[in-house]
Amino acid sequence: MDNIRYKKGINNLDKIDGKAGKMVIDSLRDISPETGQFIIEFAFGDIYERKILNLKQREMITLSSLLTQGDTHNQLIVHINGALNVGLTQNEIIEIFIQCIPYVGFPKVLNAISTAKEVFNSKK
Amino acid sequence: MDNIRYKKGINNLDKIDGKAGKMVIDSLRDISPETGQFIIEFAFGDIYERKILNLKQREMITLSSLLTQGDTHNQLIVHINGALNVGLTQNEIIEIFIQCIPYVGFPKVLNAISTAKEVFNSKK
Amino acid sequence: MDNIRYKKGINNLDKIDGKAGKMVIDSLRDISPETGQFIIEFAFGDIYERKILNLKQREMITLSSLLTQGDTHNQLIVHINGALNVGLTQNEIIEIFIQCIPYVGFPKVLNAISTAKEVFNSKK
Amino acid sequence: MDNIRYKKGINNLDKIDGKAGKMVIDSLRDISPETGQFIIEFAFGDIYERKILNLKQREMITLSSLLTQGDTHNQLIVHINGALNVGLTQNEIIEIFIQCIPYVGFPKVLNAISTAKEVFNSKK
Amino acid sequence: MDNIRYKKGINNLDKIDGKAGKMVIDSLRDISPETGQFIIEFAFGDIYERKILNLKQREMITLSSLLTQGDTHNQLIVHINGALNVGLTQNEIIEIFIQCIPYVGFPKVLNAISTAKEVFNSKK
Amino acid sequence: MDNIRYKKGINNLDKIDGKAGKMVIDSLRDISPETGQFIIEFAFGDIYERKILNLKQREMITLSSLLTQGDTHNQLIVHINGALNVGLTQNEIIEIFIQCIPYVGFPKVLNAISTAKEVFNSKK
Repeated sequence: MDNIRYKKGINNLDKIDGKAGKMVIDSLRDISPETGQFIIEFAFGDIYERKILNLKQREMITLSSLLTQGDTHNQLIVHINGALNVGLTQNEIIEIFIQCIPYVGFPKVLNAISTAKEVFNSKK
Repeated sequence: MDNIRYKKGINNLDKIDGKAGKMVIDSLRDISPETGQFIIEFAFGDIYERKILNLKQREMITLSSLLTQGDTHNQLIVHINGALNVGLTQNEIIEIFIQCIPYVGFPKVLNAISTAKEVFNSKK
Repeated sequence: MDNIRYKKGINNLDKIDGKAGKMVIDSLRDISPETGQFIIEFAFGDIYERKILNLKQREMITLSSLLTQGDTHNQLIVHINGALNVGLTQNEIIEIFIQCIPYVGFPKVLNAISTAKEVFNSKK
Repeated sequence: MDNIRYKKGINNLDKIDGKAGKMVIDSLRDISPETGQFIIEFAFGDIYERKILNLKQREMITLSSLLTQGDTHNQLIVHINGALNVGLTQNEIIEIFIQCIPYVGFPKVLNAISTAKEVFNSKK
Repeated sequence: MDNIRYKKGINNLDKIDGKAGKMVIDSLRDISPETGQFIIEFAFGDIYERKILNLKQREMITLSSLLTQGDTHNQLIVHINGALNVGLTQNEIIEIFIQCIPYVGFPKVLNAISTAKEVFNSKK
Repeated sequence: MDNIRYKKGINNLDKIDGKAGKMVIDSLRDISPETGQFIIEFAFGDIYERKILNLKQREMITLSSLLTQGDTHNQLIVHINGALNVGLTQNEIIEIFIQCIPYVGFPKVLNAISTAKEVFNSKK
């Protein structure tokens, strides 16, 4: 294991969505722990650690990418929570999805809005 | 034609990429002028006109979505130019692409970086 | 709101799938009512209102596009119902899906047939 | 080789786009002739031979599916030609693409319109 | 029906996943039996019957393709079972998914691993 | 830079496609050198270094994934070369593509075969 990258990754994951992120890593423990390690070291340790863009911007990009690729219900749940945790508002999250309409059409946007509704309602 | 939405759309298109946008609309004139009208009225008149997110954020989302969906070389050229026009730097544009690596893998990111290189070089 | 486009949209939506369409619009009311408005005004008011193709042809195209893009279970339910409402038969709907096999392979077609089965059974 | 299916396939391919189809099959001859055979026997012999939908409808579905999946420039050229050959007009072909806007967004539709322009211009 | 191709197909389907495959074919019986026939004759009779690659390699390719295209939960269940039946180990199946990370990113790989976990647990 | 992972990555890249891989890394040097570093350290240093599957199997999986995702002409060129370098034959490469037909349809397979033809011809 790569200790410095791993610690940076855990630290970034904690800022974004410590709880949901931890559940993903935990669910990988008995089937593919190295995949969990790659997520922490590479995605959160190497990429999220970089400068130039802040975490709010990184979550904005992540939500746009997840919405566009489709079949990402579980990942959208993690990152809608993550977006809220780093300071994006519910209105901003919905607006990110609306900005995608001209580029991907309504179906993918409706799927993402429906997932956001689920997450927002769970906070009430 | 819907004059108010059309004027708002042209105004937003001008801020983002007046020249390249105009070329797209012009190229549609003899084959599908209404598609050009829908792009101006709906995409740029209805969506880009909205508040909550600014044009820099909207272009950030657009680039993430275009990169993720693939087969969007021409649209990336328009919106990399657009991103520069609304104030994103070359470093920020590349960083948007790098943030997508964990979510879409390297091939789509390499395609987008290669298109950015083409656009950046044309500015020199 | 754009009254003429909105009324045309509601009118077209009623012909296609008034009940399911209304449920989609209703579900957006408290989270993103403007997305509902865009669906009515742009998708159903601007696009479905156009001549050259009739509603049966438009639903045929819509089903092919939804099947092909994947992750559109909810949208297929609305538009399989819509296709039946504008006069396509169950056999024609299945045949649309079969025509897609050479272009997208079996998995997406099996997903769409499975959704059609769900819709057809709910009519019995 | 399966003679009856092969002959039916060649017959259907001839009605749709004998010339372009033949070029595709020819280009496969020295690298993967069986793929050419599968296209003729399965796609054109089994699927296009079926009843319930006619060739105009089948090409309408095919164009919608090709537009939606993206990265299908060469296939769109074959089937825009095919659509014209079985009796769809240039206006109908563009309208098929416009009907896809709400479901896939503008980029894929602009790509398909640009390919149609290429094909239509080659006929002048 | 094409008896030789059909028998070859049933034979190959039996080797890969007789039980799950039969369930798919059965579920098509009352809604689109010809689609079931095409799966048996074309996919399993024509393609899987070919030489050059063995069934382990064919399932490896199939799993990579299903993971990459997304929205294939049901098909992954069939072919993770199929992969086990033709002799791939649980570790090899997970490793196929890990090899896809650099090419498609983490979300699709996490979806596939989660489906594998479901299948592997059902064997205990 | 992470010296051990980087050296492992360069070593694996050399085995697969030293020349083409080097060109990709070189082309990134002035626009996004860290992306080149991530490809070497993560894709080739972390993933390709793993056991359980050998390089022939890894290239088989990579080709299936690239074919399936589409818009990967440049990446297919690198990895068709890579597949040949680690010992897959031209016939095996084409057979990998044929195995994908039932899962993704003909268009993506025809695109990949056409790219293979380009690569194979360049070797003559």
